[in-house]
Amino acid sequence: MAKVLSGAGLRGQVAGKTALSTVGKSGSGLTYRGYDVKDLANHCEFEEVAYLILKGKLPNASELAQYKTKLKSLRGLPAGVKTVLETIPADAHPMDVLRTGCSILGNIETEQDFTEQQEATDRMLACFPSIICYWYRFTHDGVRIDVETDDDSIGAHFLHMLHGEKPNALHEKVMHVSLILYAEHEFNASTFTARVCASTLSDIHSCITGAIGSLRGPLHGGANEAAMAMIEKFTSPEHAEEEMMGMLARKEKIMGFGHAVYSESDPRNEIIKGWSEKLAADVGDTVLYPVSVRCEEVMWREKKLFCNADFFHASAYNFMGIPTPLFTPIFVMSRLTGWAAHVMEQRADNRIIRPSAEYTGEELRTVPPIGERD
Amino acid sequence: MAKVLSGAGLRGQVAGKTALSTVGKSGSGLTYRGYDVKDLANHCEFEEVAYLILKGKLPNASELAQYKTKLKSLRGLPAGVKTVLETIPADAHPMDVLRTGCSILGNIETEQDFTEQQEATDRMLACFPSIICYWYRFTHDGVRIDVETDDDSIGAHFLHMLHGEKPNALHEKVMHVSLILYAEHEFNASTFTARVCASTLSDIHSCITGAIGSLRGPLHGGANEAAMAMIEKFTSPEHAEEEMMGMLARKEKIMGFGHAVYSESDPRNEIIKGWSEKLAADVGDTVLYPVSVRCEEVMWREKKLFCNADFFHASAYNFMGIPTPLFTPIFVMSRLTGWAAHVMEQRADNRIIRPSAEYTGEELRTVPPIGERD
Repeated sequence: MAKVLSGAGLRGQVAGKTALSTVGKSGSGLTYRGYDVKDLANHCEFEEVAYLILKGKLPNASELAQYKTKLKSLRGLPAGVKTVLETIPADAHPMDVLRTGCSILGNIETEQDFTEQQEATDRMLACFPSIICYWYRFTHDGVRIDVETDDDSIGAHFLHMLHGEKPNALHEKVMHVSLILYAEHEFNASTFTARVCASTLSDIHSCITGAIGSLRGPLHGGANEAAMAMIEKFTSPEHAEEEMMGMLARKEKIMGFGHAVYSESDPRNEIIKGWSEKLAADVGDTVLYPVSVRCEEVMWREKKLFCNADFFHASAYNFMGIPTPLFTPIFVMSRLTGWAAHVMEQRADNRIIRPSAEYTGEELRTVPPIGERD
Repeated sequence: MAKVLSGAGLRGQVAGKTALSTVGKSGSGLTYRGYDVKDLANHCEFEEVAYLILKGKLPNASELAQYKTKLKSLRGLPAGVKTVLETIPADAHPMDVLRTGCSILGNIETEQDFTEQQEATDRMLACFPSIICYWYRFTHDGVRIDVETDDDSIGAHFLHMLHGEKPNALHEKVMHVSLILYAEHEFNASTFTARVCASTLSDIHSCITGAIGSLRGPLHGGANEAAMAMIEKFTSPEHAEEEMMGMLARKEKIMGFGHAVYSESDPRNEIIKGWSEKLAADVGDTVLYPVSVRCEEVMWREKKLFCNADFFHASAYNFMGIPTPLFTPIFVMSRLTGWAAHVMEQRADNRIIRPSAEYTGEELRTVPPIGERD
């Protein structure tokens, strides 16, 4: 067969317009609607950033309070959704649970027309943490949790349901930061999936269900889970260095480093790394954080590869007691904002996304009678 | 805002390679692995064409018999899938039902690695008709049907479950033809959705779930439903002509005509039109078929627009007693073959599909304190 096209994966090809973000644009790393992600992570709650991405502006104090009150009121799950979640086995992939949870929600609370897109998005934003935690606690702890808590934020709501107690202020703050860092990233594969689906004028639950399925792939979401699986095996920085040198020598894939778009560094890394360090101090960690730092040093020294957003998320989530299989669902809880905003943008100036293919198959031939086939 | 890009919708841009089909290539209309779709529709059963698309060759008699026996054995539904289907309301969109059915199947029978892709596809091919009919009959007739029939073909299995009795030979034949015509169509939006998802190396149920969501859109699947909604209002050819002339004068959208890729005609139309005529004679129709023919004449005379594959499917399905909301799910039962084959092709020579965007948003700006925002 012919070799891979230079245009494979549509790399560098413009597939549409967006006013939502810039990725790797010179001088500004990652921006959401013109604001640097570091600026947002340092000064905002996640709900402010969700509002910015979805409604187009940073909320003032009154708008933010109203928005948070609204989201709080939308945390409950319909009985049908709970029934479906209870049907899913304990060993299911949590991303498959969210994909199915989103899909069944779309059956029960269908977006009837595009005027409902903001309402449908707010509903998903509020109840995705409920979906994943309801299933997780039911299948792992055998309890039907109350998903309607009075926590102030989406991150606190999630940690509260997961652990059965309110998180401390540091953990709630780190969840804000994490959800902000993952919220939006231009035409990545899951977002592009949502836009292709939106371009047929399908409903928003179909778009988000499809995006979850794409984020599930190990080349996309899931890098923080893979990083965790690696670093938790290392008992000290020296052990980490020794093992990584071996992996590099054997040309094994090491997750959490480098990026398809960023070439120098991932602007999200220094932020989450700083919070991972604070969490390490808070829990008295003397292994996982130093191990992570050594991994970063080795990869830069040996391969000039930098940590992407995922690498220090692994230790940060671990310090907050989050089970590794729930790392990528947190990504969904956050990226939902970007996906939905891209769906709205696609709908507002739509043409169905229908590219062409280069044909590499058989020339025209005649169907042989079945008795004459090999 | 700037106007639409010339490259909007990636029209004419090569997004990858395929050996599966050609669409609108000069002289050969539509081909699957080199065979003209008309040749296949005239000489094959759908299961032969599914085998061709999925396994790469037309089966001989022994291979076909084995394949059909295997598919028959895979019609049953796990209890968990039935529970989920019974949870979905009667007024849900049948495409949302299939999307959810596929997603929950992926939770219960997860594709663990890519060596299982053919098995997972055969399973979906065999049980998608079960999923849609089980839900439909449960919510509309209040019965839990037996989905494990001994019908010889996928089309007969579907009609048997839907009507509670085996179809006659003519209906079974038309189902073969219809499923063949819809099986594969290069990089259309739903197939492209499946490929984008596959490019993250996600599982096949995520890819197919996403594709169903895209096919649901009114710009993609669903045109045969829209055509039916129109023609069933016309009481005679004269009435049809009068109404259509009015719709054209008011510039209303008329579904079932023209195509994004074909410019002269849709090669699938003459085939399904011929079978619609036979079905009309069989049921003694004197309205719907003549009305459909008149619509075709008016659209060609007034707009030089030809019928696409969807238009005469509307009357054909109606003559077989298929409720209009189930038209697009039949499309899924067929196109699943093309989607899955594209997933396999993408996996075999993969690069993550990650295009770029043209940025049209705000320049870099600083986050204002919340008290200073509008």
